[in-house]
Amino acid sequence: MFSAMRSRHASLLSLSRSALKTTTPALHANRISIRMTHKKALTLESINPAVLDVQYAVRGELALKADKYMHQLEDGDKSLPFDKVVTANIGNPQQKGLNQRPITYWRQVISLLENPMLMEEHLDVIKTIYPADVIRRAQSLHKEIGSVGAYTHSKGVLQIRQRVAKFIEKRDGYPSDPEMIFLTAGASAGVSQILGLALKPGDGAMIPIPQYPLYTATLSYIHGKPIPYYLNEDAEWSTNTAALREGVAKAKQDGTPIKALVVINPGNPTGACLTREAMEDVVRLCYEESILLLADEVYQRNIFNNDTKPFISFKEVVKSMDKDIADSVELVSFHSISKGVSGECGRRGGYFELCNIEPDVVDQIYKMASVTLCPPVTGQVGVDLLVNPPVEGDESYEQWKEETSLTHENLASRSKYMQERFSQLPNMSCQPADGAMYLFPRIDIPEKAIKEAEKRGKAPDVMYTLDLLDATGICAVAGSGFGQEPGTFHMRVTALCPGVEEYVDKIEKFHKDWIRKYE
Amino acid sequence: MFSAMRSRHASLLSLSRSALKTTTPALHANRISIRMTHKKALTLESINPAVLDVQYAVRGELALKADKYMHQLEDGDKSLPFDKVVTANIGNPQQKGLNQRPITYWRQVISLLENPMLMEEHLDVIKTIYPADVIRRAQSLHKEIGSVGAYTHSKGVLQIRQRVAKFIEKRDGYPSDPEMIFLTAGASAGVSQILGLALKPGDGAMIPIPQYPLYTATLSYIHGKPIPYYLNEDAEWSTNTAALREGVAKAKQDGTPIKALVVINPGNPTGACLTREAMEDVVRLCYEESILLLADEVYQRNIFNNDTKPFISFKEVVKSMDKDIADSVELVSFHSISKGVSGECGRRGGYFELCNIEPDVVDQIYKMASVTLCPPVTGQVGVDLLVNPPVEGDESYEQWKEETSLTHENLASRSKYMQERFSQLPNMSCQPADGAMYLFPRIDIPEKAIKEAEKRGKAPDVMYTLDLLDATGICAVAGSGFGQEPGTFHMRVTALCPGVEEYVDKIEKFHKDWIRKYE
Repeated sequence: MFSAMRSRHASLLSLSRSALKTTTPALHANRISIRMTHKKALTLESINPAVLDVQYAVRGELALKADKYMHQLEDGDKSLPFDKVVTANIGNPQQKGLNQRPITYWRQVISLLENPMLMEEHLDVIKTIYPADVIRRAQSLHKEIGSVGAYTHSKGVLQIRQRVAKFIEKRDGYPSDPEMIFLTAGASAGVSQILGLALKPGDGAMIPIPQYPLYTATLSYIHGKPIPYYLNEDAEWSTNTAALREGVAKAKQDGTPIKALVVINPGNPTGACLTREAMEDVVRLCYEESILLLADEVYQRNIFNNDTKPFISFKEVVKSMDKDIADSVELVSFHSISKGVSGECGRRGGYFELCNIEPDVVDQIYKMASVTLCPPVTGQVGVDLLVNPPVEGDESYEQWKEETSLTHENLASRSKYMQERFSQLPNMSCQPADGAMYLFPRIDIPEKAIKEAEKRGKAPDVMYTLDLLDATGICAVAGSGFGQEPGTFHMRVTALCPGVEEYVDKIEKFHKDWIRKYE
Repeated sequence: MFSAMRSRHASLLSLSRSALKTTTPALHANRISIRMTHKKALTLESINPAVLDVQYAVRGELALKADKYMHQLEDGDKSLPFDKVVTANIGNPQQKGLNQRPITYWRQVISLLENPMLMEEHLDVIKTIYPADVIRRAQSLHKEIGSVGAYTHSKGVLQIRQRVAKFIEKRDGYPSDPEMIFLTAGASAGVSQILGLALKPGDGAMIPIPQYPLYTATLSYIHGKPIPYYLNEDAEWSTNTAALREGVAKAKQDGTPIKALVVINPGNPTGACLTREAMEDVVRLCYEESILLLADEVYQRNIFNNDTKPFISFKEVVKSMDKDIADSVELVSFHSISKGVSGECGRRGGYFELCNIEPDVVDQIYKMASVTLCPPVTGQVGVDLLVNPPVEGDESYEQWKEETSLTHENLASRSKYMQERFSQLPNMSCQPADGAMYLFPRIDIPEKAIKEAEKRGKAPDVMYTLDLLDATGICAVAGSGFGQEPGTFHMRVTALCPGVEEYVDKIEKFHKDWIRKYE
């Protein structure tokens, strides 16, 4: 695609250079000649070539087209075959039209921190509309943080990091050190920081296929090499040792040093929760090969089958293994306020925890964090509310419980409903999700459609999702944006849409028509 | 410093490598041998070497020591010769102890956006404590944005970008296109994005000396080369053509392609406002040499001598020049909510505007912005409030005016007071500041002190600032953290401290004693 852009650009350039602009006096002619020969500093040829290699399908061509349709509808255009655009392409729970309501407790606390005068000068009034525990929490956070408009420590507010450590200890049963916890502007920012620090140009990082494209995008930008390992679709998208070891062998053969291994658990886009056995295999590999393990655990709260497929953290797995492994496997685990029932992605908050990282390297991570000054402060507050929610007996507890349970159940039931209906469609199969907020159904694309896609210069699944958008207003991302076994095709849809029945009806109708057309 | 760290580390490594491996008899012995021979993935030798080169003095050794003292004082330690730490090292207006109050209007609006239920269910109550224009503004922003917990467009909310464009048009008298405006997580994030995109590894960027160390830090990280150009201290820290052209000549001689030129105006750490003539020289150079101009204008609202030294934007200068120049010089200008009278740096908000950038390159900038998803949403709201404050007739106007004027006057009068007193000290001279919030006095360090610093393994000005901290609790940053003419020494202090008289008294006493000691 980029080579096409380059040549388009080159032809535009030569066009403007060859353009004849005859005018009278000398001064004007002189100006034109200067203008025509002025060389731009930034062109596709002159900028950082790593940038050209970055791909990020989640917000690419499809999202731009969806944007266009949305504007058309807002402008009263009646020519489209749908009356709304359904953005099932990004995990953006509180987006307009999706209507996942923010957790009331969060917003009450943060509104007080944003305007402490409400507590200082209008406490009597506020007491009539806010529960007492909200006010206590805000007062205590205000005392710790001061103004949410001030920079904090570059690692984040110490007291919040202390509570994150307690949360991790309670979750895993192993000690956690607040000094090894760094608050971040969402998990993405943390992932970029760590990959950018860990990899020399040319180093490799193992990434699952399918993956969330942040990983390949970041690797492209830092001149790193993705080393793919395929997840096993037939085993509910689990990792498997053979595929992992194959990836390692191939990298060694290519002479690529393997610096890191990324696991997304629960999976994005797959929704899979890994078993302890599968996780131990990964950890053992990292131990044997001296590979940094990056555990993207941002969906750890979105678990649908807690009895049969619970979330287990990599920190717990590492620490529960043989002492040699427990004390040496280097692990960075990421969490976020964006993706749990909180869904506060616009706030940009999250954290990572370092485990078994050399102190000298921790110092370097801290230095790099300090260049970005500090994570957004109300994002840090969000982390505090995530790891330390109201407890039974608190005035807000019942409402918090009700709201978070409802969001959680909605996600789980929509996911199940969608999976069951997708599984019944011709030319479609769909693994059930154990968690997260996506499904990644497989589409059996007829040969005729593959030929048509070739003609249109699109990947077959990209053509499918573009056609789906054109026909229904539903915006889903093609599997090729995440990676998939060659010859297979998928799409990722979120389970965030209210009115799921109508939504699946539309996909079903489109899908059947489309398959029929090309069969 | 890093070479020392490396060799320390290397000796540790060789120690573990030479450790004897015993295989039998006990499992325990075996474990130890494995542990001792396990190779870490991340060491100072194996991580990205560019990271080791990054230096960021503003939050370095000095800040860590200040942190330590602060904790000691909090723990009731009475052994220190001061009873509080004064953090004059970072521009953090709302920090505890500095007490620049947030603008009431900002916080009222944002508190409503954080908890829209205040407007929906408790409007009657809110009306009794908030001015009507605050409620109107919040309602209108809420309608545009929806939840502040949702992702926005990766460039930021369209309507906010439209208002930024209007602000720029009004400021400069030239058109501004909302599609060329990208909201960011503060100016730093924008600068990293642009430098990382514009420079190929090995490309150079011209940076002023002294500079804000974000620039050298970012260049190190992206494998770029800083090409210094010296500001003229005797001409109130102005740029000068000779120094600029010297930088260009030197880079050409070294074979370094010059991709970008950074100007900080008003200056950090210098506080200087450039004249139109000086700016035109810079623009002309960028035109002739096809260099991207990066204008860091985050202090544009902090101007002390508006009549004699007003702020002029680079966009205005570029657009007012010869048409060839106006239509071709590539400019990215940065603004921020952190550094004006708003001082909302913990919120992380800002924007950059692209001017004369090739459309293909704009697409790449957009793609890279989309990988980071979106800037923090209440940071975006902050930008809206920055560019579109209350106007005369609005209920909040008087209070807004009073608060912002007070902050502005405090900054200006403290800056003037500090400059006058510093200028009277022996072995110290200080250029007056036209704006921003720092002073950068020059310290004439006696030969004996330079020898002592050498013994201690410190730069002389670093020793000075460390001694200042030990004696007074005042935390200032040595000039070597920003760069300075070889053989000259400076420090940067902020003009944010309340109780400026006592603060300067302490510096004066320390300075006189220190100079006496070494003279």
